[in-house]
Amino acid sequence: MIIVLKRNQEEEKVKSFIEMLTRKYEVTVNTWVGTHSTVLGLLGDTAAVDDEYIAAQPIVESVKRVQEPYKKANRKFHPDDTVVRVNENAVIGDGSLALIAGPCSVESREQICSVAARVKAAGATFLRGGAFKPRTSPYAFSGLKAEGLELLKEAKAETGLPIVTELMSIEHLPLFEDVDVIQIGARNMQNFELLRELGHVNKPILLKRGLANTIEELLMSAEYIMAGGNEQVILCERGIRTYETFTRNTLDISAVPILKRLTHLPVIIDPSHASGISWLVEPLALAAAAVGADGLIIEVHNDPSHALCDGAQSITPDQFDRLAEKVGAVTKTVRGL
Amino acid sequence: MIIVLKRNQEEEKVKSFIEMLTRKYEVTVNTWVGTHSTVLGLLGDTAAVDDEYIAAQPIVESVKRVQEPYKKANRKFHPDDTVVRVNENAVIGDGSLALIAGPCSVESREQICSVAARVKAAGATFLRGGAFKPRTSPYAFSGLKAEGLELLKEAKAETGLPIVTELMSIEHLPLFEDVDVIQIGARNMQNFELLRELGHVNKPILLKRGLANTIEELLMSAEYIMAGGNEQVILCERGIRTYETFTRNTLDISAVPILKRLTHLPVIIDPSHASGISWLVEPLALAAAAVGADGLIIEVHNDPSHALCDGAQSITPDQFDRLAEKVGAVTKTVRGL
Amino acid sequence: MIIVLKRNQEEEKVKSFIEMLTRKYEVTVNTWVGTHSTVLGLLGDTAAVDDEYIAAQPIVESVKRVQEPYKKANRKFHPDDTVVRVNENAVIGDGSLALIAGPCSVESREQICSVAARVKAAGATFLRGGAFKPRTSPYAFSGLKAEGLELLKEAKAETGLPIVTELMSIEHLPLFEDVDVIQIGARNMQNFELLRELGHVNKPILLKRGLANTIEELLMSAEYIMAGGNEQVILCERGIRTYETFTRNTLDISAVPILKRLTHLPVIIDPSHASGISWLVEPLALAAAAVGADGLIIEVHNDPSHALCDGAQSITPDQFDRLAEKVGAVTKTVRGL
Amino acid sequence: MIIVLKRNQEEEKVKSFIEMLTRKYEVTVNTWVGTHSTVLGLLGDTAAVDDEYIAAQPIVESVKRVQEPYKKANRKFHPDDTVVRVNENAVIGDGSLALIAGPCSVESREQICSVAARVKAAGATFLRGGAFKPRTSPYAFSGLKAEGLELLKEAKAETGLPIVTELMSIEHLPLFEDVDVIQIGARNMQNFELLRELGHVNKPILLKRGLANTIEELLMSAEYIMAGGNEQVILCERGIRTYETFTRNTLDISAVPILKRLTHLPVIIDPSHASGISWLVEPLALAAAAVGADGLIIEVHNDPSHALCDGAQSITPDQFDRLAEKVGAVTKTVRGL
Repeated sequence: MIIVLKRNQEEEKVKSFIEMLTRKYEVTVNTWVGTHSTVLGLLGDTAAVDDEYIAAQPIVESVKRVQEPYKKANRKFHPDDTVVRVNENAVIGDGSLALIAGPCSVESREQICSVAARVKAAGATFLRGGAFKPRTSPYAFSGLKAEGLELLKEAKAETGLPIVTELMSIEHLPLFEDVDVIQIGARNMQNFELLRELGHVNKPILLKRGLANTIEELLMSAEYIMAGGNEQVILCERGIRTYETFTRNTLDISAVPILKRLTHLPVIIDPSHASGISWLVEPLALAAAAVGADGLIIEVHNDPSHALCDGAQSITPDQFDRLAEKVGAVTKTVRGL
Repeated sequence: MIIVLKRNQEEEKVKSFIEMLTRKYEVTVNTWVGTHSTVLGLLGDTAAVDDEYIAAQPIVESVKRVQEPYKKANRKFHPDDTVVRVNENAVIGDGSLALIAGPCSVESREQICSVAARVKAAGATFLRGGAFKPRTSPYAFSGLKAEGLELLKEAKAETGLPIVTELMSIEHLPLFEDVDVIQIGARNMQNFELLRELGHVNKPILLKRGLANTIEELLMSAEYIMAGGNEQVILCERGIRTYETFTRNTLDISAVPILKRLTHLPVIIDPSHASGISWLVEPLALAAAAVGADGLIIEVHNDPSHALCDGAQSITPDQFDRLAEKVGAVTKTVRGL
Repeated sequence: MIIVLKRNQEEEKVKSFIEMLTRKYEVTVNTWVGTHSTVLGLLGDTAAVDDEYIAAQPIVESVKRVQEPYKKANRKFHPDDTVVRVNENAVIGDGSLALIAGPCSVESREQICSVAARVKAAGATFLRGGAFKPRTSPYAFSGLKAEGLELLKEAKAETGLPIVTELMSIEHLPLFEDVDVIQIGARNMQNFELLRELGHVNKPILLKRGLANTIEELLMSAEYIMAGGNEQVILCERGIRTYETFTRNTLDISAVPILKRLTHLPVIIDPSHASGISWLVEPLALAAAAVGADGLIIEVHNDPSHALCDGAQSITPDQFDRLAEKVGAVTKTVRGL
Repeated sequence: MIIVLKRNQEEEKVKSFIEMLTRKYEVTVNTWVGTHSTVLGLLGDTAAVDDEYIAAQPIVESVKRVQEPYKKANRKFHPDDTVVRVNENAVIGDGSLALIAGPCSVESREQICSVAARVKAAGATFLRGGAFKPRTSPYAFSGLKAEGLELLKEAKAETGLPIVTELMSIEHLPLFEDVDVIQIGARNMQNFELLRELGHVNKPILLKRGLANTIEELLMSAEYIMAGGNEQVILCERGIRTYETFTRNTLDISAVPILKRLTHLPVIIDPSHASGISWLVEPLALAAAAVGADGLIIEVHNDPSHALCDGAQSITPDQFDRLAEKVGAVTKTVRGL
């Protein structure tokens, strides 16, 4: 961490500031005195140093972090890729492209089981489906809740596909015992109380990037979970909010190679939410495969026009068949280069 | 709601689509057949109609909402201003400019009581102070929690100022019995499970706008609370995330007159978080007073450089004295015009 | 175009408003009178109707465009792909992936000729290189100007590669006689006087999307050029400005399939400016190939650390060799599917 | 400027890098060697140092500018406020709130003269009016051009109000001889060729902030003009592009106090373009007065519903009367505090 001090500070004040730093944090401080300004360099465990606190000191002009503020998620301290393995077939982060597919929300036994069978046949190794649905309007359908979880379990029993589904409140956790991967939605990415609790859960967490969160903030939220002891975190880029209104969100495709460099955690893409438009799902999925994502999470519905939510961005099982084939071919090409 | 259908649709399909609409929602449908396209107009309770569901229908080209999707928060159905009154002096929304002030986080008995006394003397009618603090990093100070709430109560006992403090999880609610106004932070603005619970709480809720949430989404989150029966909601603009990096956030000052027009709920501004810089707090507070805000929530710390959080944006009690005087003068001028 | 009128308007006013519409524009107006509001539907050449003018009328509640405001660029009226062909090998928009490569700025004869030879050997069919450089600071190197254009011509003479270079002012046009493709930079995307002049130029225009311009605005700027008679426009997505600060810009990869659907013009991607970081160029180029772009424009420098501009985002000729091979393989796979 | 080098660099390389820096720029370099990394501090004229060039060097980890990259616009080197004075009454930057008012575009002699007379009577000291209009669509009305300038002169002759009008191309400059203040629109804020030419013009320049430009970029564009010798630059905040769609742009009210601190140039606000909605103009103008702006530029039209452009955001002369009175009262209150 580099701290630039304001001009012409009294020597005494600088000295007592440095003493405070070494007392408060596990760091050593190097001082460089220029003609007009003094610069301090902090070495040691600067992840624990609070930038904002430093910036608030009256003698400080500005603060620049050199070291990342996340530790457990940091590839520098954990060079090998984290591989999340639910069963022999259902693996994320091993170099393959994992396909997680299913409807936005679970609607009926028939719906979830038939979609599950179809996406499995196409190559998906995880079943997604929402039982608890975050909705902007209090008047909109918000999922079948406990009943939806039961139906997911039936689909799992029939197909063997592990379940990925969203948790919206820690109170619902007891219902999630048979869930394989817990999804945390974009709107809860900085629900810190929830993240803290997930640190004590023994299941992989699929953590979606918030609508307007930076890559670093996503990693800090992963760090919350990991700091509690749960290191099985899958990061998901699902589009960010920008000024462009054609799509619901703007897919930040660059986030994949950046995250792969900064962290050892697997990174997947959700082209369905990123665009909100079904005809964009396939090209974005192909881009994700080419850019090096570890997986895709895709909304597939047997009858999108009757979907209880997100119909406009859902693709049909037939479309998913084609998509799976194509992304498979691109992955094979890219990995073989 | 106006629905534009795709070109050249079979009459039969259009008919069955219209039947579905009238069956599913409490609306009547008017049809206008143009040369190339057909447009449907829906009348009735369209707030309950799900745009996305409609947009997903294969015969639909586009959907345009004419009526707002919120009802209880809508000024059209409730023309008179909602006034939130905690006690005789502590009122928000009655035409005055309410001042809510205090430290980012409660740190000690002495700190909270001395700040409380100072801000009260300057004209504040509410005491703010965080006991549960949302922090980006799991390694940062996250508040004194239950102990912090106890200290707030002591400051209230000493000064008579009602308490405004943040709730991060519904599980903490029992601790908030003596809290006067529950604050919901920007990062929880779309924590729908939490919002739903707040609908059953008999206390005013100070709801902060999310970092990247639209004005309509803020109103929909207020609607969540109101739909549950709690109509005492105070809206707070606290800066939105934009590409500009000089300030932590960009204060959307226009949100005040827009919200005042769309809703009957009171609207306040948080210039401290909006800027993240202490020397911007006063000019932004003056702008807020001039633009018609119902109140201000401001971070005041007896010693910002030793604040455990948000020191860089906190002002001192002396600075608050001056600010209170100035915003009072501007409010008097503007209200008198 | 759908116009929703305000509630309870006098019949006379509505009538005279409709008369104005039919007198002023080549449209017919259909009226649909609902219980509370009146909706007008305009048919005909609504691209010429000014939304803002309509929205300013006192009886108008809101306006919604159904038809796109661009005509010549619209795929609906020109379903076949536009193919820009400079010579037998240098073609953009024919289903292949065109590679445009070269240094950010032309620095010397040796530099431009050696880079040109290398990128040609790797498969590039166009040479890029800046002679006039837009720079944020008036004190930064702003290109060799006329001399730079001469050096580009020499590189063209040696390699046969057609030249793509940026025009910043119409006054420089006489110098561009031997330039093959004129590039208009992001900061001039809405320099309407310049665009209008380009309508009378008989050369392909490579039009870059502005930092904060929507897809529709990009198409409207293309329309400016096309309206003047020059229909050879190549669109270029080069990253948009968002709140994310890790990269210089955020590549909006979705813009490619969206533009390919809305317009018949070819669409290319600039991964160098989109990221500003050399190690992101290859993965983003692969994503561009997979998503269906018609070409790539890439900064290649023989010695990036001595580049007079954009060194941080330039790749070396060796890196370009690998990139060209990889994107070729992905294009082959995707086009073959 | 602080340069952090990558870890474990050879001493020789560091030495030759430092030699390059001192040779290339007028700086002295101080070196601070930490346990793991080496940090360099540059002193001297670092405004001339190109961050990007430095960042591209292979041994550089990151670069942080301590000194601002603008000089002539920098308050540090020019502490006193710049006052732009066109005549005895028409002054911007002297502590008063200058009012610049008039229609979006000049439409007829009668229109411009009658509006001019009305805004003068209300207290405006400058007349605005567009003769050359930047329009997104090539099919929209783009101003009366030379004829419009003639009409502005007539209005000036009648009222004595100096003229503020937009220049879109340097080729039109000869027509602007009688124009008092040249406006550069948001879309041309980074038209560097135009800015450079304006450096040689002996008239004040009203420079609008671009749709997605940072405060620093605005200052760099002012620096372009000033570097050429023209130091009479007025900065104008007119709303920036964000994700919020209720308003056309988002007024960045904080830009005023920030700019007033960073630069000695006067700063005004355009509440008409910032919102795009006529009923927002007054509250935003009041906020501007309170926050410390040096002036306002406001669209006033005798008949907004027949305005050839921007009718939806224009206010009437009667509304301007009230606005002028109110902002006068707020200015008096704020300046008197």
